[in-house]
Amino acid sequence: MAAATGLTRATVSALVDDLVTGALLTEREPAPRTGAGRPAVGLVVAPDGPAGLGLEINVDYRGACVVDLAGTIRHRLVEPGDQRLQDPQTVLEGLGRLAARARALAEADGLTVAGAVLAVPGLVAADGVVRIAPNLGWQDVTVGDLPDGLAMTVDNEANLAALGERDLGELPHDFVYVSGEIGIGAGIVLGGALYRGSRGWSGEIGHIPIHSDGPACRCGARGCLEQYAGQEAVLRAAGVDTVGALARAATAGKPDALAALTAAGAALGMAVATVVNLLDVRTIVLGGSYASLLPWLREGIAAEAGRRVLTAAWSPVQLRAATLGPDAAMLGAAGSVLRGVLDDPAAWLARRP
Amino acid sequence: MAAATGLTRATVSALVDDLVTGALLTEREPAPRTGAGRPAVGLVVAPDGPAGLGLEINVDYRGACVVDLAGTIRHRLVEPGDQRLQDPQTVLEGLGRLAARARALAEADGLTVAGAVLAVPGLVAADGVVRIAPNLGWQDVTVGDLPDGLAMTVDNEANLAALGERDLGELPHDFVYVSGEIGIGAGIVLGGALYRGSRGWSGEIGHIPIHSDGPACRCGARGCLEQYAGQEAVLRAAGVDTVGALARAATAGKPDALAALTAAGAALGMAVATVVNLLDVRTIVLGGSYASLLPWLREGIAAEAGRRVLTAAWSPVQLRAATLGPDAAMLGAAGSVLRGVLDDPAAWLARRP
Repeated sequence: MAAATGLTRATVSALVDDLVTGALLTEREPAPRTGAGRPAVGLVVAPDGPAGLGLEINVDYRGACVVDLAGTIRHRLVEPGDQRLQDPQTVLEGLGRLAARARALAEADGLTVAGAVLAVPGLVAADGVVRIAPNLGWQDVTVGDLPDGLAMTVDNEANLAALGERDLGELPHDFVYVSGEIGIGAGIVLGGALYRGSRGWSGEIGHIPIHSDGPACRCGARGCLEQYAGQEAVLRAAGVDTVGALARAATAGKPDALAALTAAGAALGMAVATVVNLLDVRTIVLGGSYASLLPWLREGIAAEAGRRVLTAAWSPVQLRAATLGPDAAMLGAAGSVLRGVLDDPAAWLARRP
Repeated sequence: MAAATGLTRATVSALVDDLVTGALLTEREPAPRTGAGRPAVGLVVAPDGPAGLGLEINVDYRGACVVDLAGTIRHRLVEPGDQRLQDPQTVLEGLGRLAARARALAEADGLTVAGAVLAVPGLVAADGVVRIAPNLGWQDVTVGDLPDGLAMTVDNEANLAALGERDLGELPHDFVYVSGEIGIGAGIVLGGALYRGSRGWSGEIGHIPIHSDGPACRCGARGCLEQYAGQEAVLRAAGVDTVGALARAATAGKPDALAALTAAGAALGMAVATVVNLLDVRTIVLGGSYASLLPWLREGIAAEAGRRVLTAAWSPVQLRAATLGPDAAMLGAAGSVLRGVLDDPAAWLARRP
């Protein structure tokens, strides 16, 4: 480490001591001797140090996960259920109980939860107020800290999922993550950084018009992408109840399921073409339920994108399934807590008990 | 100047001497004495120093302009004519002659042309090759320097126009410039900087689909915005030949003209809503022929944007007519030469004859 950084061995030792004391690093057995001098101590990221609590409220479930500094998912709790049937405060109270359970599990493992980030399918203002989440029916909902006093910040679910995918380190510097749930959102990553927009409200791909006079959307307009490729629209067209049932029906070659997915793919392809033509981003990552449905969506998306993207002839759009699966937003939320720790380890060391 | 910069009077004098010698600054009469000490010499940006040569090839004209360091348009030459009737090399030769005339006029004024930038309605690769300009029918056209040896770089017309509008200093840090010619392009300015995209091909707003199975577009797809709000589509619908005639017919309340502009405004509003929903940019600047037609387009754009932009209820989209008018791209091109001089004045001073 001294060689790699150009610092002296003594300085590195002192810094490492701080990180070990702060439970960010852990020593392990020395590596086998390979040369002269004292054997170097092995160091690994601490599995019992700080943890990130990732939370999510989406239309048909709420969830919590605990991720440690090594990136391991230590706990995952998901409560399915239509969140539109309760008012926002009741939903947030339920989330608080779920978060407390997850935190208790983390502490039982010896982890310290460093903070919580909540993913919501809506537009979040700089002051943490959810300005609008059309599919939840939320408007101007203030989300404070958790009931047990743990600091919680709120962010858009597609943004958090995009950050989670980015941090896996396998994507190009520019990509757009498209989250396919009941609503459809996008997280735009440009030059490796999340592009949030001038007020934090970028990425509302779900409201790109597909047919100007199409079905009414929850946003108040007509013919938005969500009415053609949102989960409820696709399940209804396929005559099934769940994404799992849709995938099984498609695998079995059921015509209704295949037709529903083809139509959704074409609508999604129109929106993807618009995103690529506007932003000149070559890679589109399909997440949420789209990740598992991509085999049947791909052809429709690629056909529309191939026809509509000006650069498609010499630079076809790359479609990739999200790696983190349907939990991407929640995992990205936990990751964003941990990024905070890593960006400022001194702050973490200072507040450790 | 010494007070403002914290440099000594002697250093400022030496630097100013260089800039005066290099014809970037000119001394003028001392200001009236207002205090003790020697009166300070007045300095203005030199009107006879470097000039930028802005060039443009668009579908129905080509043009050249000379702009001096004070921002004054010293010469403007425009040759109307359908550029699709000649092959690219013949068009570029014609442009070379126009550029030589403009340069001669500049030199007769005592100006030194510092370089040339050419605006084209197409996608320009990093190596200066015009990959595709659908409305010109160009594909993979290499544009070299001018025949007289003057260095020329090529850029997208909407990008250059957006930079020109930005440099007037009256727009917010985030805006999208929409250029309405026969083609429709956009220049995206985020945080005060032009967002070019991952390969320089951002802003292709003209190919946002308005109706998936609408009229065939020159890009090969169907139902693109250009087929609803491009200049040819609007003039055809209004039954007039020129943008001037369209504005006169609309002023006179001719129903065909008003209906054509209303329909174009609605299509444009759908595209603007998509841009705002994706990028969270609040200000849209309408340029090209849209600048003069905005009075009749505004209502249609605002109605669709009001209905479709998720944030419209609390943050309506701001629509502004471009200040630079139909010459914006050409002026932005000239300005971009001058920005090069100002960004590196030492390089300019070194190469001065």
